[in-house]
Amino acid sequence: MAALRARTVLLTGSNRGIGLELVKQLLGGPRPPAWIFATCRDPEGPRAQVSACLGSQSPFSVTADVANPSAIADAAKIVEGKLNGAGLNLLINNAGIYAQVSLETVDSDEMIRTYKTNAVGPLLMAQTFLPLLKKAAQNSTEKGLSCSKAAIINISTVMGSIEKTPESFCKPVISYRCSKAALNMLTKCQALTYGEAGILCVALHPGWVKTDMGTQEADLTVDTSVRGLLSVLPVLSEKHSGNLLNWEGKVIPW
Amino acid sequence: MAALRARTVLLTGSNRGIGLELVKQLLGGPRPPAWIFATCRDPEGPRAQVSACLGSQSPFSVTADVANPSAIADAAKIVEGKLNGAGLNLLINNAGIYAQVSLETVDSDEMIRTYKTNAVGPLLMAQTFLPLLKKAAQNSTEKGLSCSKAAIINISTVMGSIEKTPESFCKPVISYRCSKAALNMLTKCQALTYGEAGILCVALHPGWVKTDMGTQEADLTVDTSVRGLLSVLPVLSEKHSGNLLNWEGKVIPW
Repeated sequence: MAALRARTVLLTGSNRGIGLELVKQLLGGPRPPAWIFATCRDPEGPRAQVSACLGSQSPFSVTADVANPSAIADAAKIVEGKLNGAGLNLLINNAGIYAQVSLETVDSDEMIRTYKTNAVGPLLMAQTFLPLLKKAAQNSTEKGLSCSKAAIINISTVMGSIEKTPESFCKPVISYRCSKAALNMLTKCQALTYGEAGILCVALHPGWVKTDMGTQEADLTVDTSVRGLLSVLPVLSEKHSGNLLNWEGKVIPW
Repeated sequence: MAALRARTVLLTGSNRGIGLELVKQLLGGPRPPAWIFATCRDPEGPRAQVSACLGSQSPFSVTADVANPSAIADAAKIVEGKLNGAGLNLLINNAGIYAQVSLETVDSDEMIRTYKTNAVGPLLMAQTFLPLLKKAAQNSTEKGLSCSKAAIINISTVMGSIEKTPESFCKPVISYRCSKAALNMLTKCQALTYGEAGILCVALHPGWVKTDMGTQEADLTVDTSVRGLLSVLPVLSEKHSGNLLNWEGKVIPW
């Protein structure tokens, strides 16, 4: 199997769950990145684990609330300084929120709050880090698109698939579903816009995972899900850009 | 061709364009509804035409900013009073906004503003008018689902289809595309939730129409588009619920 050769990686929502496991497995892999920027809203907060378990070197903890444009801009300045002229190979938009609300119980504030974090956040992250992603693409001698060269990975979900909704409709998560359908649209638009600059854009469904969000009833351990995701990343190419794939690399319909 | 037999209709965004033409053609049809509630943000405002051209009887102008939950609740009280015990057969969520913004130029406020009107608005309208839609379904002796019995029609767009995005990507309307992908997801969830209560839920693409939003470069006159939409409504049944169809009744992929 191909190994991921991204030298510089930035990941949002790294404080726990899938984000934290991605950081751990990236560091423990055969060719760990030179830089992992592990961002979360509050790296020193009581629920954040990434700072405590991973030290202060690389991975480098950066504060970035993806729902806050000025916090993202501040994070970009820090990352750019650390990279010292190098580009960013891989942006993983993993931060996301989830509320158990049905069509009957959801209100406008909950709809907006979830959209802001799950769809607008990834848009703003990509906008802000675009110069560093472009730099990585320009500095690469690789042809085509790949996660080792320059890529935006949006962690989405099968629950954002309109086609698949009847299969999972027992879960009343209307604000989450709508935000993730929008994130899937964003991914397609990013692929069409950023492809010319050499940047691959893919949405990934990590499966239903035993995390705070997924609960312990879920199908997959976080270890299995993240091993799957990290085995999919190295095989992604221009033919996958603009699609939604699961942790096993299978395409999910919109 | 079957005629629409909805006796009571409520329509948002009726001040101009497709909304205004829907009101005119509904009134001019072979079996005009007993009540058309034509809502818009400001029926007396300088850009609203529905009050001026249609008088103050039926259609009855109602103020309802779909981005404002309390304005929707106020409108529902007025409509309920006028209906005097009858139900609402047909809710047409037509109000929508559109801005020419690309991935590079869009900001968080524009993303939220468009989502609030185009996706959250239709959700809140359906939530608020649900008791009247249920009443119409209960009062009907028809089997199955239809627009004559009880239905929610969300005016969407092919630009909310992720699959079709490459075909129309020359238009930089990222906030609109994401909001309409979310509206399509909402339509699917509404169909799955409200079907048991006898309510049909469909998203319709009116085509690219010569209106203020579509510009005069568009393919279709507003007359042609609305004639198409009004010929699709009477043929809709449970087999269409939860789908996106165009003004000719053809299914559009997600």
